[in-house]
Amino acid sequence: MCTEISGGVCAPRGFLAGGIRCGIKPASQKKDLALIYSKSVCAAAAMFTQNKVKAASVIVSQENISNGKLRAIIANSGNANACTGQEGLAAARRMARLAAGVLQIDTADVAVASTGVIGVPLPVNVIEKNIDALKASLRGDEQGHADALEAIMTTDTRKKEIAVETEIDGKKVRIGAMTKGSGMIHPDMATMLAFITTDAAVHPSVLNSSLHRAVKRSFNRLTVDGDTSTNDMVVIMANGEAANKIIADEGADYEIFCAALEKVCVDLTRKMARDGEGATKLVTVTVDGAASEEAAEILARSVASSNLVKAACFGADANWGRVLCAMGYSGAGFLPEQTDVSFMGKTDSVQVCKNGEAVDFSEDKAKLVLSEEEIEIFIRLREGNGKASVWGCDLTYDYVKINGDYRS
Amino acid sequence: MCTEISGGVCAPRGFLAGGIRCGIKPASQKKDLALIYSKSVCAAAAMFTQNKVKAASVIVSQENISNGKLRAIIANSGNANACTGQEGLAAARRMARLAAGVLQIDTADVAVASTGVIGVPLPVNVIEKNIDALKASLRGDEQGHADALEAIMTTDTRKKEIAVETEIDGKKVRIGAMTKGSGMIHPDMATMLAFITTDAAVHPSVLNSSLHRAVKRSFNRLTVDGDTSTNDMVVIMANGEAANKIIADEGADYEIFCAALEKVCVDLTRKMARDGEGATKLVTVTVDGAASEEAAEILARSVASSNLVKAACFGADANWGRVLCAMGYSGAGFLPEQTDVSFMGKTDSVQVCKNGEAVDFSEDKAKLVLSEEEIEIFIRLREGNGKASVWGCDLTYDYVKINGDYRS
Repeated sequence: MCTEISGGVCAPRGFLAGGIRCGIKPASQKKDLALIYSKSVCAAAAMFTQNKVKAASVIVSQENISNGKLRAIIANSGNANACTGQEGLAAARRMARLAAGVLQIDTADVAVASTGVIGVPLPVNVIEKNIDALKASLRGDEQGHADALEAIMTTDTRKKEIAVETEIDGKKVRIGAMTKGSGMIHPDMATMLAFITTDAAVHPSVLNSSLHRAVKRSFNRLTVDGDTSTNDMVVIMANGEAANKIIADEGADYEIFCAALEKVCVDLTRKMARDGEGATKLVTVTVDGAASEEAAEILARSVASSNLVKAACFGADANWGRVLCAMGYSGAGFLPEQTDVSFMGKTDSVQVCKNGEAVDFSEDKAKLVLSEEEIEIFIRLREGNGKASVWGCDLTYDYVKINGDYRS
Repeated sequence: MCTEISGGVCAPRGFLAGGIRCGIKPASQKKDLALIYSKSVCAAAAMFTQNKVKAASVIVSQENISNGKLRAIIANSGNANACTGQEGLAAARRMARLAAGVLQIDTADVAVASTGVIGVPLPVNVIEKNIDALKASLRGDEQGHADALEAIMTTDTRKKEIAVETEIDGKKVRIGAMTKGSGMIHPDMATMLAFITTDAAVHPSVLNSSLHRAVKRSFNRLTVDGDTSTNDMVVIMANGEAANKIIADEGADYEIFCAALEKVCVDLTRKMARDGEGATKLVTVTVDGAASEEAAEILARSVASSNLVKAACFGADANWGRVLCAMGYSGAGFLPEQTDVSFMGKTDSVQVCKNGEAVDFSEDKAKLVLSEEEIEIFIRLREGNGKASVWGCDLTYDYVKINGDYRS
């Protein structure tokens, strides 16, 4: 009943979005300034980077979300406005003020997001010069969503977007979302910006708990390179225009909403992993049969994060020993001698390890499976019912190339 | 007074070493079986991988070291004998028995080490066939050391060896050592084998504490790719042939011995980092002025382990924001706004960050410094006297290439 629809963040009723090029990315002709706006005030929730070094935008957005309300998000790419001191903080506040001014809303109802290079002062003057053009770019259709999405991308090579429709309290409820994020991605969160809109009516505190629940099982199970950025942020705004009875506690409606939100977040997580910097494939690591979900997650994350496993995936090399090795140093308990490992593609799969030892498998078949664009490393334990998937990607020449000279 | 000498593990009196090709590496003409032997029984100490998945050689060596005595180390490359079950354990025990038989010593006085691919049965028959030739290869000179060292190397491209001479109790005391280790290197320990010999007379329990002290500040501060192997092992054997008064407690002689041992271990650590898989440069990360040595180590390790920092070092890109970012997610406390960062080469250095913000520096000069073969990222805090260095390397195309298809 939860079906995919088009329109991204503009799919839910009452939301507009837009994006323009203002010149923060000087050498590029790409859009670099985005705006998302709700016609009415929204219940809002957000999660931010756990990094002790926080971008100015993170600090300002944390302040503005504290009352559980938002109406707009202004975001730039090309400059992270991190490690920029008091001046950077002033610039982030000015971004919020500029957006509020042109939208004629309260500055405290604006979230600010930035992504790009660290340690370079944000040229907030060019934002000011272009703020009217930014407002003029707002549209309630798919194009508005697409313009905003383009404007938050950095090294992303694919658009990461989704919208779904479900039914709550007899009303059609929609959730739309966009993310950017490609490198420097690791729990908790990622160098990722995720903006989610919904026309569901949800109480702010319930919205907050549903966001935490979804992020725990999606964005926080994504790893590209082990680096947690200074700028990570996921924001959800719920404007209630679907006119469902407000979700104010954890009943059946809450469960439907959470399931739809988790679907959205998992979909975007997979898309981010697939678009990991330099990645040629999506690598899903699933551990089943662990003592607990937590143990399964720790084990899966260790495997998905291992440079050696990631490089083997790139080379389509069925080097399952590295999988067991990564589990072994994960810190979670498990019995190596009761561990099975399979590599799975879309249509075929190969078991490579049974009870912690080699299985006689066809190297050719394994190579074929591992050459697919989406592969799963499936690990079966026999210790309980704990299950978790972590999403990552392979480690490639292009990852090194992209990050060897990012600033140029 | 602690000076470098030649001879490696054969520099200390009473030690012989040798190495041959027995055919464990089938497609290669390289040596793959090594033996180190002391003419007299040695006090011995060892440290092993913390990985829950332990190679059979680790299990057998842990048993044999438990009484604080050893006389020989037999080691093979080309096969890790890990994830090989009961059969693998039997093979490791047989390696020890074969060495003991030909040397006419107690099997319990033999340490066993293996390195190479995981999950493939160890062809112990070819070791048996060649055990006499292995014994015949033993020599007390530099060539014996060189043969043994060649036989433990895998993807290593450089020989990592050292010997030093110091004076204890009026006697010349020597320490010699070799290591292999290139990829899958991360604390605790590394995929590294380190074999250390000394003719100092040292009580086993004191030898053990001196080894822990040295390893804590050397091998355990090395990171190449974040992967802790199943086979890591550092073994020290002390045969007492220097005839110093036995070091049995933590007095002045102990301090001299510890200093010499730390010098040996730090030297080998730097050589391993420089020879990290695919590395083009040694990257030392030093944090000074932290609240404690532990905090300094955590911060330095996080920076040295960051794929993004490592890729930037490869590209000679002065992307200091990534340095602060990696400190921020290290888990250790520090004040970003009181953090300075400099990039240092052999002859020149560039400060790039002061008080957590950008310094106006010459990009050209920074590029020059970061293009050197040995660079240091020096981070100055103002919170205490804690200081630590961690050694790593850059992340390169070749790292991906080497690990994309290691088994072929």
